[in-house]
Amino acid sequence: MGISKIDQGLPGSLTFLANVKYVDHLQTTSADVILINREQEIDSSSDKTFIRTDDPYLGFCQVLNRYFNPAVSKSGIHPSATVAETASIGKDVYLGPNVVIDDHVTVGDGTKIYPNSYVGAGSTLGNNCIIYSNVSIYYDSRIGDEVIIHSGTVIGSDGFGHAPQKDGSYIKIPQIGNVIIGSKVEIGSNCSIDRATLGSTRIGDGCRLDNLIQVAHNVEIGAHTVIAGQSGISGSTTLGERCVIGGQVGFAGHLKVASGTQVGAQSGLNRDIEEENTQWFGSPVMPLKDALRTILIIQNLPEMRSKIKQLERTTEKIKQSLEQNENTQDER
Amino acid sequence: MGISKIDQGLPGSLTFLANVKYVDHLQTTSADVILINREQEIDSSSDKTFIRTDDPYLGFCQVLNRYFNPAVSKSGIHPSATVAETASIGKDVYLGPNVVIDDHVTVGDGTKIYPNSYVGAGSTLGNNCIIYSNVSIYYDSRIGDEVIIHSGTVIGSDGFGHAPQKDGSYIKIPQIGNVIIGSKVEIGSNCSIDRATLGSTRIGDGCRLDNLIQVAHNVEIGAHTVIAGQSGISGSTTLGERCVIGGQVGFAGHLKVASGTQVGAQSGLNRDIEEENTQWFGSPVMPLKDALRTILIIQNLPEMRSKIKQLERTTEKIKQSLEQNENTQDER
Amino acid sequence: MGISKIDQGLPGSLTFLANVKYVDHLQTTSADVILINREQEIDSSSDKTFIRTDDPYLGFCQVLNRYFNPAVSKSGIHPSATVAETASIGKDVYLGPNVVIDDHVTVGDGTKIYPNSYVGAGSTLGNNCIIYSNVSIYYDSRIGDEVIIHSGTVIGSDGFGHAPQKDGSYIKIPQIGNVIIGSKVEIGSNCSIDRATLGSTRIGDGCRLDNLIQVAHNVEIGAHTVIAGQSGISGSTTLGERCVIGGQVGFAGHLKVASGTQVGAQSGLNRDIEEENTQWFGSPVMPLKDALRTILIIQNLPEMRSKIKQLERTTEKIKQSLEQNENTQDER
Repeated sequence: MGISKIDQGLPGSLTFLANVKYVDHLQTTSADVILINREQEIDSSSDKTFIRTDDPYLGFCQVLNRYFNPAVSKSGIHPSATVAETASIGKDVYLGPNVVIDDHVTVGDGTKIYPNSYVGAGSTLGNNCIIYSNVSIYYDSRIGDEVIIHSGTVIGSDGFGHAPQKDGSYIKIPQIGNVIIGSKVEIGSNCSIDRATLGSTRIGDGCRLDNLIQVAHNVEIGAHTVIAGQSGISGSTTLGERCVIGGQVGFAGHLKVASGTQVGAQSGLNRDIEEENTQWFGSPVMPLKDALRTILIIQNLPEMRSKIKQLERTTEKIKQSLEQNENTQDER
Repeated sequence: MGISKIDQGLPGSLTFLANVKYVDHLQTTSADVILINREQEIDSSSDKTFIRTDDPYLGFCQVLNRYFNPAVSKSGIHPSATVAETASIGKDVYLGPNVVIDDHVTVGDGTKIYPNSYVGAGSTLGNNCIIYSNVSIYYDSRIGDEVIIHSGTVIGSDGFGHAPQKDGSYIKIPQIGNVIIGSKVEIGSNCSIDRATLGSTRIGDGCRLDNLIQVAHNVEIGAHTVIAGQSGISGSTTLGERCVIGGQVGFAGHLKVASGTQVGAQSGLNRDIEEENTQWFGSPVMPLKDALRTILIIQNLPEMRSKIKQLERTTEKIKQSLEQNENTQDER
Repeated sequence: MGISKIDQGLPGSLTFLANVKYVDHLQTTSADVILINREQEIDSSSDKTFIRTDDPYLGFCQVLNRYFNPAVSKSGIHPSATVAETASIGKDVYLGPNVVIDDHVTVGDGTKIYPNSYVGAGSTLGNNCIIYSNVSIYYDSRIGDEVIIHSGTVIGSDGFGHAPQKDGSYIKIPQIGNVIIGSKVEIGSNCSIDRATLGSTRIGDGCRLDNLIQVAHNVEIGAHTVIAGQSGISGSTTLGERCVIGGQVGFAGHLKVASGTQVGAQSGLNRDIEEENTQWFGSPVMPLKDALRTILIIQNLPEMRSKIKQLERTTEKIKQSLEQNENTQDER
């Protein structure tokens, strides 16, 4: 059985109606099974199969995630996988070709690890995780249940700590903490999540990170925070829960950002955000409203400059006229 | 036989003369074979070998790409490669150690895949591609002929789609489309090209992408578009053909950008570009000319502020002087 | 034996006292061995073990790097590693599972290469390097002693060189130079260091690069320069020694940046920096002081606009008043 959009429905496929704008397609779609809202009126003569649900789009997503995801069909431990004797591997685990599981690693039931990924000593993966190919998980990482990590992502590389010496060189500050990732987290491809100097870098339950994101040492991200691609969070900064961060955003280090904070793309945060559920934009950030107003003014700067020139001319004329006046009066 | 710059020519090496500025080196270079323009005058007593061509630099590049590229000398399927029985592997293919080719993959003639790369189920690679080490290609990707993909790049990871729920959590929106890459495309290292939600993320023939670039789900990039490092394109944005995009540029989602558009480094696009062959800069972008003028004004803002202060002082004086005048006149 | 912060000392652990603020913890810490300054007064009745040193924090770091780094305990060549017969492997080397060492590679004594990494033909690694998992090192790279390269990083991918043709397409400019990395360099995860077109891309001794950094072809970086995450340096740009570069900074190509230059996060450099030890910020960069002043003015632009409107009103009133005056005087 296939799946399709309601306006492109293929015979035999599953679709959904979430937006009333598409209601006319109920009559015309070639799809045969349609998820609809509980209140949706339907043509009783229709030969389609309708499934009523509170949220048809949500239902559609759930069906797809469970039944149409090729990732979940993988199983078995490939003979070319290298699994340490001291590792503990759960039931129904997939370890693809060339996967390397180091000493004392725990891999939970139903977890799938794609080819050429590496899990360092002492790390723990929960149940039903999907780790795609070429992922690197350093030692002592803690990863919850139902976590998805996309290819090329690195968990637990050393934080960026280097103490300057008198001769201009640096000595490496050991990074002996770890990374702790909650459950139901998804991390995109080619992200870099550094281990803590001491303690833990933390990514809370349900967080969603896009691709090419940097999370530096000792950062803590609250539950259900969402971060778009190519953003970076400097060391020891704390993000609250349910934050929504645009792409290519940068956070300075040691900041505290309140829950529900929203930050526009390409912004640069150099300050704490204390009030919850506020919106910010710009580099350095301003409250969203101020930022939008400021951008408009910047775009009109040439006009502003002209006005100033005009004012200078006018004022000069007035001065001259006044002086002349005075002279005239003096003459009187 | 080696190759060298004309001013550093080594005995026995191949070089080229493209820029008349270097014409004197024709006499003095130690290189023995020199690609020159068809019209170039040469000393008939010279013991060098000259090869005449329309474009000596182009010819030099072609010779190098064909004969001096160590990548093209690799061949054979390494015994440690894991190739699914259902995969179809062309002639003269190189599959390096630990390469993993999943079910129903097609690899075209002459294609070379370096160690530790992974090609997911059902993906197709054309002829004469070079896939460097540690590349991850997810299932159902379509890659044309003569495509080069550098190390660490990820093709077909899930797009960033997460539907917010009432309780503040997110449900993953399944990403069941794919990635289609044309022919003669080159993609740098550590790029992330996401698969479409439905349909395809598309990169047209002849495109050139630098390193660490994000291409989000359902993005479409026209033929021969060039994108510099660390730029990111958000979901469903369409770029035309022959665009030239600088480094660290960000595109918002759902934009339409006309063919031939040029965008300066670190710009942020938040609007459609309708006219072809125009130049843009800044964050948010302005037409290049306006952006350059605005930058100059911004750099002179302290001076502008001084002028305003001066105007305020002058105007205040004039007001006082006028009031005094009036008083004086009243006294008269 | 464990390690701890002095205020969290665990029995039997090693700690240090570097900051006099924490001096009271000397009495109360449960740690048993404490690195202290040579001049530090101590309670002679204490049953702790004190180790005097010029720089207790430095000493602590050195102990940790040597004795508590799980990376350095790895050893042996795993049977699944693929090592070319022509390669030269030093003493006490660790080659993890699925490591691939290509023809004519040299790996120095004590160097450790983690699983699934690849070293291309003819490359040289010095002594006591640590190459983490899934690293790709292209052919002919030269890497010094005691270099650390984190997972996912790519050394020696092709520079971004493409010559536009009359028909709108591009021809690849061969990238036949290499990458040379000095000693005691650390490069974070998922970085892309491109090989030179001709000659070498160079990273000097003691440099520290964070994650997700791009270093383009023919860039040269002087010794002990430090670059934070997600910054990018375009082709042929030269950075001096001991520079400090913030995160998400972009450098245009062909620039010369003097030693000791400091650049704030998210800056964009489009100009040479000739004077040493200067500080810069903004995009495009300004001297730090100017940039900070300009940012303040930008944040006050709405107020500036109000002032201009006020001035326009005032000036208009003055003009009217003057004209009235003149009329009045004329009437007299």
